[in-house]
Parts: sequence; structure tokens; C-alpha cells
Amino acid sequence: MEFSENLFAKHMSPISGSAIRDIFQLLGKPGMISFAGGNPSNQALEPEVIAPIAEEVIRTVGAPILQYGATEGYAPLRGSIRAFLKEDGIDCAEEEILPTEGSTQGMDLLLKTLIDPGDTVLVEDPTFLGALQAIRTYHANIVPVPSDEKGVIPEALEDAIKAHHPKLIYVIPTFQNPTGLTLTIERRKRIAELAAQYGVIVAEDDPYRDLRYAGEAVPTIKSFDKEGWVVYLASFSKLISPGMRVGAMVISLPKLMRKCVIGKQSSDLHCPLMTQAIVDSYLRKGLLRPHIERITAGYRAQLKAMLDGFVAFPAGTAHTSPEGGLFVWASLPEDMDALALLNKAIERGVAYVPGTHFYANGGHVNTFRLNFSNSPVEKITEGMEKLAAVMNENR
Amino acid sequence: MEFSENLFAKHMSPISGSAIRDIFQLLGKPGMISFAGGNPSNQALEPEVIAPIAEEVIRTVGAPILQYGATEGYAPLRGSIRAFLKEDGIDCAEEEILPTEGSTQGMDLLLKTLIDPGDTVLVEDPTFLGALQAIRTYHANIVPVPSDEKGVIPEALEDAIKAHHPKLIYVIPTFQNPTGLTLTIERRKRIAELAAQYGVIVAEDDPYRDLRYAGEAVPTIKSFDKEGWVVYLASFSKLISPGMRVGAMVISLPKLMRKCVIGKQSSDLHCPLMTQAIVDSYLRKGLLRPHIERITAGYRAQLKAMLDGFVAFPAGTAHTSPEGGLFVWASLPEDMDALALLNKAIERGVAYVPGTHFYANGGHVNTFRLNFSNSPVEKITEGMEKLAAVMNENR
Repeated sequence: MEFSENLFAKHMSPISGSAIRDIFQLLGKPGMISFAGGNPSNQALEPEVIAPIAEEVIRTVGAPILQYGATEGYAPLRGSIRAFLKEDGIDCAEEEILPTEGSTQGMDLLLKTLIDPGDTVLVEDPTFLGALQAIRTYHANIVPVPSDEKGVIPEALEDAIKAHHPKLIYVIPTFQNPTGLTLTIERRKRIAELAAQYGVIVAEDDPYRDLRYAGEAVPTIKSFDKEGWVVYLASFSKLISPGMRVGAMVISLPKLMRKCVIGKQSSDLHCPLMTQAIVDSYLRKGLLRPHIERITAGYRAQLKAMLDGFVAFPAGTAHTSPEGGLFVWASLPEDMDALALLNKAIERGVAYVPGTHFYANGGHVNTFRLNFSNSPVEKITEGMEKLAAVMNENR
Repeated sequence: MEFSENLFAKHMSPISGSAIRDIFQLLGKPGMISFAGGNPSNQALEPEVIAPIAEEVIRTVGAPILQYGATEGYAPLRGSIRAFLKEDGIDCAEEEILPTEGSTQGMDLLLKTLIDPGDTVLVEDPTFLGALQAIRTYHANIVPVPSDEKGVIPEALEDAIKAHHPKLIYVIPTFQNPTGLTLTIERRKRIAELAAQYGVIVAEDDPYRDLRYAGEAVPTIKSFDKEGWVVYLASFSKLISPGMRVGAMVISLPKLMRKCVIGKQSSDLHCPLMTQAIVDSYLRKGLLRPHIERITAGYRAQLKAMLDGFVAFPAGTAHTSPEGGLFVWASLPEDMDALALLNKAIERGVAYVPGTHFYANGGHVNTFRLNFSNSPVEKITEGMEKLAAVMNENR
């Protein structure tokens, strides 16, 4: 018998893979300057530091590090993550922490646990396209909520809650992906209130929080959460290593924690003990804060070079000026099409992600997202010049 | 607002976690002899071998091992798994191999990709309880198919296919969990034929294959698969380390591979590169086959000690005599209750898993599963004596 598309689960049929990953296929060309990804700089990765730590933890822990572990996570890591989060103003018990394969798995477990097909998830507009894809995988009804330069708009969020009775609200509050913008403290407080008032779980995805190059830290939404409606998703991908896939959920409701643990049992049983133990050791040795200081100095200069590069863009181009994170968001004049221009940019040797992919309902083809963390300053300057030339020639 | 159970996805409501893991809570008592788990022996784990390999691969690969990787897997590992599988008679291209977090994730991705709520999955009766839990998570209709001492019965399987039009058939053909029995070559061939004839995906979960202590290797179901209906799930958990969570799917249908990759993107993005690179290096150094020879010698002696221990059990006790794997399956006389006796056994300092948990529809309370890999020979002898005493006192 011939294999037919009909055999796939219905919810998987419309899913065709991440647009970003397809763009990646085009980036193999030598000399390509890519503003398309979300990778940390290779300069921010420390194989020479991690290699001896790996050797040390395997030798020190011995056979148990190679044995089956608890789905709930490697106990010492839960302790060191607790201390790390406390520095960021999140005061939780170790029992509230569930190590995950990056914050990607945290979102997947929330969806697995909460969403029946047709349930509504509210998202920012625009939002991270990987999250949109994950939500679609669970066949949820995605409702985008308007944002402005202060982040998602609480009045619009409340209207959407009343109209759609969502199970879940997905928010990236700090140096948002794709906009780079940060949700204000007043709005964070209000979101925590709305979650409790209407009984909706908030997924606070906060992987960029510690990559701040200017301004003052803003408390997390989770820090305003009194009843446990906010689930905080932390990640070490942007701070230590994305390839190790170590993140964590903070889940204050014991019933929800139990369901996520059960969901994780059948997803992967547990995170590898080795990667958990390496991150634990890295944190306990006090290596993270000095490392963050070092990498933020580099990223700050890269961000400045990118923002400077907008001077040559067509009149009417607008862009965000983020205080941290990895991304700058831009919009060309309304009559221009960043989606259509991508191929020309790639021919010229520079790549970005068209902004339309970050909108749940598409459109906004004049927008685009630029990443600055993965290119050195001189390449950023060169790439921005090339990009400006493409945009100017096609306006 | 108070968090309510109603917020959980309906498909998650009946799921209360693995019975085995709850039993594990009782095993902390000092001196407890546990036949309950499925752990490899700590003696079979090699932290002294893995530690320098970890150090070496991180230093040699450098920053890219800490960077984001491809969902499709670490390319060298796909190559070394291909060579490993070829020795076992599975001749596939690297593009057919998807590294996963143990075979657990392989089954999860098949379910995520294929199953809409209400779709049918056929399973052996009894079967691995972790698989039953995973299938329930996707709200599938589980239909158990009768097995005998040669494994699942092809005539019964064909009847079930005709009656229920399943999307997926889950089989553990070699040293099955929980029975320890091996599906005959004729039946393997027939299952591959039935899959193609009726257009049903077969998940061939084969983690114990290389742990053979007697008899001759039997070709995989996959080796009889001409059209790609059989997905082979391999795992290094029982051979190198369960804590590293490295396994692989062999998926010959490109469309199915693409969907599983998309499903994995939103599950965890990719497996950690470090654990993939360590297993790759271990395989390329030729360490696996001599290691398997060493550990099978130990497990063979442990299995013998366990089988010898049945002599003291109540008359009418039956048990399997597996040629490999980690488990022995036993049934007490029909009027006895292994589920009810578990607490008495634990009081006496010995634990097992009641067989009823491995049956999709429960029942069979006179059966139980014993693991021999995780206890040294003298403890096995002692534990079997204690268990025989409990059974005899309560017959």
C-alpha cells in the first residue's frame, strides 16, 4: 500500500516546518552575512571551560550520572537554578523547578498538558515563530493580541480573554523575539492580575533577560504572581550554550507540576544528567555572572553597529532600539515588501527573516527581523550597507 | 481564581503517572532488593571511559558543539549509527536516521505525528507500561492483541487490523518488556507484510536486541520492510548509558521523516550535541562490541541466578526463560494476587512490578515482572528466596 498524507494526525497537516529553518538552507553560500538566525556568538561559547567541567562531573558523580535519572530533574541543578533565579527576583522552592530541554520543551509541555484541539492560546502580535509552530502542532486556536512599544496592551489582552476564554497566554516580556522590546513594569503587574482574575495560565518565556546592555532590570511577571498562574520559562541557551539544551520551568501549582512531569515522562523520560550536571557545576563555580558581563560587552557593540547602519535605509524605515537581547525589528515604508526582497538580499550576500512569519495571521510584509549576536561588528556594518543598498534600489 | 482540574487537556485527565515510578518511591529503604526497575547494572556503566571522551569531543569540536544544532541530528552520529545498525542487518541511509532522546522520544514523535484523539494503536498484551502511558497521553484508542510464547499472534493481529483500522502497531520484538520473549522470524516477516498490506505504521521498539545471552540473533521486522511501513526504534540506553538519553529512529518514508523532524522541532529543537558526539565517538572508537561482550557475561549469570530462584516458588508458578534482555515474567497460580502481595514483599525487603500494569485493560493480577540486571548474583539469590517465602506464606 502507498503511504498517504491522510495517515498524519490532522493537527499536523498544516504544519510545514519553520520558515527560519528553510531560510537557513540558503545560508550555506560562502561569505554570506546572516542576520537571520538567533544564535549566540561563537565567541560567547566556552568549549575550553566546559570540556574540563564535563570531564570533572562525570568522574566525580560516577556511574549514577550515566544511569536513569528522575523526570523531576537532577537535584543539585534544581538547587543551583533556584539560587540563580533568586538573583533575578524569583523566589521559589526547588520543588517548583523542572529542568527542560531549553525553554522550547517548557512551552511544549504546557501545550501538551493544557491544550485540547480548538482551545485558545493568546499570543503577542508579532511573536516568536517557533512558538506559533508549537501551538499549531497542538491544533490550538491562536488569537494574536496587539502590542505597542511598551509590549502587549493589557486592555486588548483583557478583551481577548473575555472574548475567547483562553487556556494559555504566551508572552516574551524582555527584549522580545522578534521586536527586542521590553514590557513595562505596570503591564507586567497587570498581566499577573488578569491571569489570576480570569484563571488563565501565563507562559512567561524569558530567555534574553540577562542580556541587558542599557537601562535597568524590570521585575518578572512571575514576581507579581500570588496564586501560581504564571509559569516562568528560563533558559541557559543564550547564556551558556544552546547546544546543551538546558532550561527550566518554574511551576508553582503542584497539580500543574505533576501533569508536566507526567507529560515529560513520555516525551523524553528526563533531560540528560550530564548536561544538567555541567550547567549545575558552571553555576556553582560562580562562572555565569562574569561570563554574562563579558558577552554583554561584545553584544552591546554589535547592537550599536546595527542601529548605526539604519542611517542609510530608505526614508520612512522605522526600527526598534532594544536595551538588550539578540534582535532588532524594522519596518520599511508601507508600500515595500521585505518578504519579496529577501531573495535579492541573499543574492547580495546578506540575510534576514521577513517579519510576516512572526504574525499569527501573516501580513505586515514590510517588516523584518535582524539578529546582531552572530556577526562581528565589521560584518554587521558591511551587511547593513548591503541591505540598505538592496532596499534603496527596490523602493 | 482557584486552579481547577478542568483546565487540563481532556486527554491528560486519566493519566496519573507511571505505576513503576510510584513503586520507586517505596524503594528508598536501606537493604531493599529491587527487581522492580529496568536499570542497567551500575557495573555496566563506564564513567571512567566516558569522562575523557566527553572532554575530548568538546575540545575537538569546539564552539560548534555548544551552538544550536540541526533537528535532524549530529551528522557524524547519523553515520556511526548507520554502521552500527548495518551490523544488525538494518541497511539504511543516513537520511533515514533521526537521533532521539532514547527510544521514548521516538515513540512520542510517532504518536505526535500520526495520532488524532480516538485513533487506534495496537499493542502486545502485555506490553511496556511506559508506552501505554505515552499512547494514553495522545488520547488514542488502545487495542491489545493476544500474544503467546512466540510473541504477538499474527492471525489475531490481522483480525485487529481489519476490525479497528489502526494508525500504529507497537511491538517490542526482542526480549520483550515485560515478558522477555522473542518474536519468531516467521512472525516478524508476517508483521512486515501485514503493515504493507493494510497500510499501518509499525513501531519496532528494539532496545534489548544486543543483550543476548543464548541462542541466535533473529532478523529485525525492519529488515523485512520493503515499503517503509516499519519504523525502527534503537536505543543506547541499555548498551552505553540511559542517563545520556541517546537513541534513534529509522524512518524510511521521507514524508514521515519530515513530519517527525517538525514534531521534534517544537518538542526540544534537537538532542544535545554533546551527548550525541560522545556516543558517536564511543562507536567510532570500536568500544561498543567489546563492552557488550563484557556486560552480557555478567547479565547471563544474573539471569541464571534468577531463574534458579523459582524452584522455591509455589507449585503452579510459571515463568519465562528469556535468551536475553533485562526481564523475567512470571505468573502465580490463578487464585493468587501479585498486586496485593507487593506490599508484603516490600516489607520483607524485595520489590517487583505487578503484571497487571502491563495489560492495557488491567486484570491478570497473578502475574509479575522481575528485573535481574540491576542486582548482583548474591542479591538475586537472596531476593528470590525472600520472594518465594512471601508467596508461599500467602498462597
